[in-house]
Amino acid sequence: MNKKIYSKMEIINAIEGINLIDIIEKGFVEYSKGNSVVPPVGELLFTDPPGDVHIKYGYIKGHDNYVIKIASGFPENNELGLSTSHGVMVMFDSRSGFLKCILHDEGYLTNVRTAVAGSICAKYLAPNKVIKIGIIGTGIQARLQLKYIKYTTKCVDVMVLGRDSKKINDYIEDMRKEGFNLEVANNSKQLCESCNLIVTTTSANESLIKKSDIKPGTHITAVGSDTPEKRELDSNILGLANLVVVDSVSQCVERGETKYALEKNIINRSDLVELGDIIMNKNNGRLCENDITVADLTGVAVQDIMITNKVYNNLNQL
Amino acid sequence: MNKKIYSKMEIINAIEGINLIDIIEKGFVEYSKGNSVVPPVGELLFTDPPGDVHIKYGYIKGHDNYVIKIASGFPENNELGLSTSHGVMVMFDSRSGFLKCILHDEGYLTNVRTAVAGSICAKYLAPNKVIKIGIIGTGIQARLQLKYIKYTTKCVDVMVLGRDSKKINDYIEDMRKEGFNLEVANNSKQLCESCNLIVTTTSANESLIKKSDIKPGTHITAVGSDTPEKRELDSNILGLANLVVVDSVSQCVERGETKYALEKNIINRSDLVELGDIIMNKNNGRLCENDITVADLTGVAVQDIMITNKVYNNLNQL
Repeated sequence: MNKKIYSKMEIINAIEGINLIDIIEKGFVEYSKGNSVVPPVGELLFTDPPGDVHIKYGYIKGHDNYVIKIASGFPENNELGLSTSHGVMVMFDSRSGFLKCILHDEGYLTNVRTAVAGSICAKYLAPNKVIKIGIIGTGIQARLQLKYIKYTTKCVDVMVLGRDSKKINDYIEDMRKEGFNLEVANNSKQLCESCNLIVTTTSANESLIKKSDIKPGTHITAVGSDTPEKRELDSNILGLANLVVVDSVSQCVERGETKYALEKNIINRSDLVELGDIIMNKNNGRLCENDITVADLTGVAVQDIMITNKVYNNLNQL
Repeated sequence: MNKKIYSKMEIINAIEGINLIDIIEKGFVEYSKGNSVVPPVGELLFTDPPGDVHIKYGYIKGHDNYVIKIASGFPENNELGLSTSHGVMVMFDSRSGFLKCILHDEGYLTNVRTAVAGSICAKYLAPNKVIKIGIIGTGIQARLQLKYIKYTTKCVDVMVLGRDSKKINDYIEDMRKEGFNLEVANNSKQLCESCNLIVTTTSANESLIKKSDIKPGTHITAVGSDTPEKRELDSNILGLANLVVVDSVSQCVERGETKYALEKNIINRSDLVELGDIIMNKNNGRLCENDITVADLTGVAVQDIMITNKVYNNLNQL
């Protein structure tokens, strides 16, 4: 019998140093082409302690498997010195329903595929010349965004905005080891003035950057908002944008930054362009260096399916 | 590190010979009391080969865990000599999101908790004197229904109706070893005349027993229909019934026998009584020996949660 369950360490080793941009791009393309079956996200909410669990699942037509991803966020784990994100990816054979493997990634692959999506947004939507990368947040996702942005962006100058000076210092120390030059932003205004590629990576419920701070020629990717409640951007920033890109129209009307902007009639559903269509060049994306563009990522099951396939194949050396 | 994944054989050994009636009853009671969080069933459908996957998940308030069950049915596995049902139960800590265990039960626990629910229906809804048990179908569920009905019903006389004489003979041979006296029904009429407790266990899309065959004083439990398409009973049988019991009102209006009967206005939603309310005695159930009662089971996540808890505790000897 084959091994069925793999640990986080085995999974990390299976994809460490591997360029995942192409495979995640392929996932977005299949999704926007309608070649995938992705039901609405399943959700379980907890209050004591607070936590949310998301079940993202589906398959890409023609693939020999389907994947069910269960990922959780329990913020108070932080106080216990434990990771706030956890979960597993479960893969089955789509011809028989037999279990193929369980990746006990503890949320790692969700973090990675999210960072890769951010990197893809930078590739297609950032201005040609990225002057400085602005990172909001100092957690796992703030680290992984820089790690994967290397694959699509040459700039290594970074400004970081956070709330906790200890965490900011730790972040700077870690990212310097990765080859980045870092400085601290005192506030949203300073960050927006200095950076033309901004990535927000927090689980905030209120906007961390202000509309009035945004300069022409800026691209912003918001990766932190994946529930109906969370948001990281002033809704008016989406109204200011020449282009609003989403990973999934159907998900973004229900959750994330886009939901708020739609509810306030700041943008229309017909304004939204899917990332898969940008990758396929069905939409031209950024038209000039002075455009303001926003990408709102909520995380789509096709990313989980593609990364699970990659890990499975690497582990089984196919 | 604790062991995380358990095989079907370990799971079978952990609950073999154990009375599961009480724990599954408790699940139905918590559900009907509103003490559980059970989102709508997730579903993935396949066409080539045909298959369906159900994701049932949730938690009981106050419990220290949540459970996500992934179960599939791929009918053409049968032709390959493989089990048509498969799946896993995945349990997490509801205070942290950490994985507690994976039960690679290959669909076994879904079959068992379904059979236990059938046994609970017999306990509360069958006439006081069961003359003969009528079983429709000759598969795994037809076997397990008898195995667990022993816990609630004294009768050991059984009549079976099936389509394939080889399968009927195998079934009779297996069930005789379990202490039952078996005979074959030639048709629906003969079965309904002889039996006052009938259990339908097929994945049929059309009715196998006729309204005109049903005698007063009969209870029928339909366990096979768990998708919007499947059904085992002529909808008019639900109209004939003095009482229609469902495991979950919200699920049964969407799938199973009840959906058809509601669509045809044969019964009203307000007629439906949940099994949990019968167990709690909020509804009196069968009022006289001549009543016709029907129970429509679609399978509720609370059953999966309760049986996963039982197996986990037995495996960890708590």
